[in-house]
Amino acid sequence: MSASPSGPGTSRTRSWWGWGYADAHPDDAACVALGALLPGTLARPLPVPRVADLSVGRPGVTPPTALAHLVTSDPDVRAAHAMGRAYRDIVRALRGRPGRIPDLVARPTHDREVADLLDWAGGRGVAVIPFGGGSSVVGGVEYRGDTHRAVLSLDLTSMDRVLEVDTVSRSARIQSGALGPVLEAQLRPHGLTLRHFPQSFEFSTLGGWLATRAGGHYATGRTHIDDFVQSLSVVTPAGTSTSWRLPASGAGPSPDRLFLGSEGALGIITEAWMRLQERPRHRASASVAFADFQQALEAVRAIAQSDLSPANCRLLDPGEALLSGASHDGSAVLVLGFESAASPVDGRLASAVDLALAHGGHGGSRGRGGRGGHDGTPAADGDAPADTAVSAWRSAFLRMPYLRDGLARMGAVVETFETAATWDRVPALIDAVRTEVGSAATKATGHPATVNCRLTHVYPDGVAPYFTVAVAGRPGDEVRIWDDIKAAASEVLHRYRATITHHHAVGRDHRPGYDLQRPAPFALALRAAKDALDPHRILNPGVLID
Amino acid sequence: MSASPSGPGTSRTRSWWGWGYADAHPDDAACVALGALLPGTLARPLPVPRVADLSVGRPGVTPPTALAHLVTSDPDVRAAHAMGRAYRDIVRALRGRPGRIPDLVARPTHDREVADLLDWAGGRGVAVIPFGGGSSVVGGVEYRGDTHRAVLSLDLTSMDRVLEVDTVSRSARIQSGALGPVLEAQLRPHGLTLRHFPQSFEFSTLGGWLATRAGGHYATGRTHIDDFVQSLSVVTPAGTSTSWRLPASGAGPSPDRLFLGSEGALGIITEAWMRLQERPRHRASASVAFADFQQALEAVRAIAQSDLSPANCRLLDPGEALLSGASHDGSAVLVLGFESAASPVDGRLASAVDLALAHGGHGGSRGRGGRGGHDGTPAADGDAPADTAVSAWRSAFLRMPYLRDGLARMGAVVETFETAATWDRVPALIDAVRTEVGSAATKATGHPATVNCRLTHVYPDGVAPYFTVAVAGRPGDEVRIWDDIKAAASEVLHRYRATITHHHAVGRDHRPGYDLQRPAPFALALRAAKDALDPHRILNPGVLID
Repeated sequence: MSASPSGPGTSRTRSWWGWGYADAHPDDAACVALGALLPGTLARPLPVPRVADLSVGRPGVTPPTALAHLVTSDPDVRAAHAMGRAYRDIVRALRGRPGRIPDLVARPTHDREVADLLDWAGGRGVAVIPFGGGSSVVGGVEYRGDTHRAVLSLDLTSMDRVLEVDTVSRSARIQSGALGPVLEAQLRPHGLTLRHFPQSFEFSTLGGWLATRAGGHYATGRTHIDDFVQSLSVVTPAGTSTSWRLPASGAGPSPDRLFLGSEGALGIITEAWMRLQERPRHRASASVAFADFQQALEAVRAIAQSDLSPANCRLLDPGEALLSGASHDGSAVLVLGFESAASPVDGRLASAVDLALAHGGHGGSRGRGGRGGHDGTPAADGDAPADTAVSAWRSAFLRMPYLRDGLARMGAVVETFETAATWDRVPALIDAVRTEVGSAATKATGHPATVNCRLTHVYPDGVAPYFTVAVAGRPGDEVRIWDDIKAAASEVLHRYRATITHHHAVGRDHRPGYDLQRPAPFALALRAAKDALDPHRILNPGVLID
Repeated sequence: MSASPSGPGTSRTRSWWGWGYADAHPDDAACVALGALLPGTLARPLPVPRVADLSVGRPGVTPPTALAHLVTSDPDVRAAHAMGRAYRDIVRALRGRPGRIPDLVARPTHDREVADLLDWAGGRGVAVIPFGGGSSVVGGVEYRGDTHRAVLSLDLTSMDRVLEVDTVSRSARIQSGALGPVLEAQLRPHGLTLRHFPQSFEFSTLGGWLATRAGGHYATGRTHIDDFVQSLSVVTPAGTSTSWRLPASGAGPSPDRLFLGSEGALGIITEAWMRLQERPRHRASASVAFADFQQALEAVRAIAQSDLSPANCRLLDPGEALLSGASHDGSAVLVLGFESAASPVDGRLASAVDLALAHGGHGGSRGRGGRGGHDGTPAADGDAPADTAVSAWRSAFLRMPYLRDGLARMGAVVETFETAATWDRVPALIDAVRTEVGSAATKATGHPATVNCRLTHVYPDGVAPYFTVAVAGRPGDEVRIWDDIKAAASEVLHRYRATITHHHAVGRDHRPGYDLQRPAPFALALRAAKDALDPHRILNPGVLID
């Protein structure tokens, strides 16, 4: 297997085409076992793709001497920067037709070099695609146009240091190219943590989280990375924007909020002062089963509208619960977790469990006082939780993207998408997604489809449901089938005025839905801002703004 | 006394020139007593100004017939819309030289009329100044230019209804012209509350809060109005921007965050879906005294960095504590309050008091279980708290702007300004403000100045200090003295990279400081957005963008 160079901070090899580490991929036998779960899939897995089988081609542009040491045209590196890690990307690699492979990959080490690269690219019509961990599942890091002379993938992972720590204000200045484990390792000696743990934690960077408004660890309250930003430095073709470090401000529209979610279209986020927390000392988790999913929704709403603030409050529907091993009897399962640096959390957990039981929950088990990462945090962050359903869910959570790739090798089409809506619309929305997206998947393939749902983040006024659709595909036709499923999903979300994305970002795959969602005057304003900051239109073309 | 028509929802008469209700103003004897507190003030108060003494002039433009029923040229109404309620505004009225009086005042009743008024104004070069409660203390609602043919004050207080309440998602669609008490009165029958109580609560509107990113009730956590917005409708000259109602979204930069804080320069916010809460059932408050202000700062930091989340955590320095009656022995006083709709808060209060005592606090008293509005909430919201220092502070808090106007009548110059900074800079910042702004006030007047400080909002990573400067002025020279004090304050804030405003907004008075604070590329983007949305540059000219 051809592979990209090792990621920073680890000796394990990253896969050039699939999720995460190459050595964590399911082997052929495991793929066959996965395929057996879905009627109609292949008898044998598609072969693991190799860069050597691609026609990578020679770069269409040469960097200037002064920047040459930052730039590579190595085919393995370029192939590993050609796409993100959506199912659509995986299957294109498996079929030997990945997205456009960038001409060059640059790895700057400080802001000045980023600015110099933008200057050079702007003068030559070279598209610049910012690249962090490359874990985009929305087509955020590939070039799909044809109006640029060449494509430069701007890999920021050499800018991965925590530059300053302010223990008094509990904050740190962190370079944007730091992967999750890399930044947490540098914060740990100070007793502090960013505590932002998206599912992609190991394979995504601070800059990626900021550029896509990633959703993190917390199931309630402040979970989007937006809320943990004190200030940003963003290199744009029109100069570097550095906001002041402030705990809060009312001085005009927030400069940071314009760049948060800008997905590389307005500038390259190079560093940020981030708000940190003490590491939690008290934790407790529990799970509660529900025979009725609607009752479970009501339980979650009651907890979200209490002031209990669980760190984890994830509801798995029966299909999700079964797949993750959290239940085996067709129950939905609510996974609850609490944590605190200051005081024991057993009382809050007990109150939340009581609320769940009062809303029709039953059974379940409780893990008191564990130090465990009940919350989807990586193994390094703590021991396994005491509650078995919680523990099963957690390991399945981190394993899921690998299993998706195994299913893809068996010819399955797998799509995951997420949204958010206010509580009044949630039950009907979830029903409509199940019915309509399932039908679309079956219609496109002739095979039965499974549509599972979990709630990943809950708010007093609404919730973020996350859907997984899996269906056996037709060999060679997977991208079109995936497009049909995506279109059906977008149609339902639009009808219910549910956001096209809660935390996966827009990228290129969600552009049609985003364009329908975004108010027209705001689109005018954003386009004008883009013209002002990126006059040569080189920054991540096709993302957010045409 | 000439006065504007009564405010909605009350039969009391609003003052056309001073804070709040005319019948709440200190009388001449009370003014003399106030003046005695500041050496060098006048022996007798300046007379209360009358509209009849102004040269209001005839309007420079006539509205079209179709809109005429929405528009008035009544001199009393126009005078009441000429300025906000900064000290600078008050003293200009007292000296008979208010800001430019608008030619017309319009009171639209729905979005279509707002759009029609903008169309009309855009075609004729008429400046449009959005006007809610008129409580701006930063020159946000007056015209200071000379490039427009006429000035229209767009008063939104006829759009003051709660249009829909969603009790499932705990949210409501509210028209932007609703004053605080007007919107709370409409939410109360549903058992819900917005719980946004700025000091100006009675005299400011939802639209004003949104346009200025107002800071509210909560001393910790989410306090800026920004965090309570589900969606906005904004009428711009380029069309109406209506975002979807969402509990959260990661779809590109937040449309709402561009309009939040736009201060009328990008569009007219006409309604918003706002996140609500159950009304609190449990409350407790306490005060703790500190002989040493630095120790008190450390106590506040410890509480802010705990997970106790007090609703109120306001630290008064000795001068503030004395003036408000919260202490009489030169102590600083920390006012603490907790509230919850769900569960008793005595335990959290006790933990916070313990933290304060462990950091050098002493004495103080505690009011357990009271229903009282310990938090600056208006009387309608609950009974007085049991703690006497808390109670004294609360009534002084609501009375302060009236006293400021009384001092102004005695020839004093009074400036209040606020900021926010990270904890590492806070002690030096507060010292520098006291020393340098005090010196500037004395230098400008020849009189001793008092500079008091309180902390209004606290965060894990920093704090928002609020300063009050008072000094006897030189008759007729008050505006220049105030400008000198403002310049000195801005200089210190800039040096410490402390925001020019935490919750008072930028308006016209803070433009120099704002222009220094705002990153240059963001200014480019904002200007481009303004050009796209307001091509005729009629919206609140001079605010945020030239």
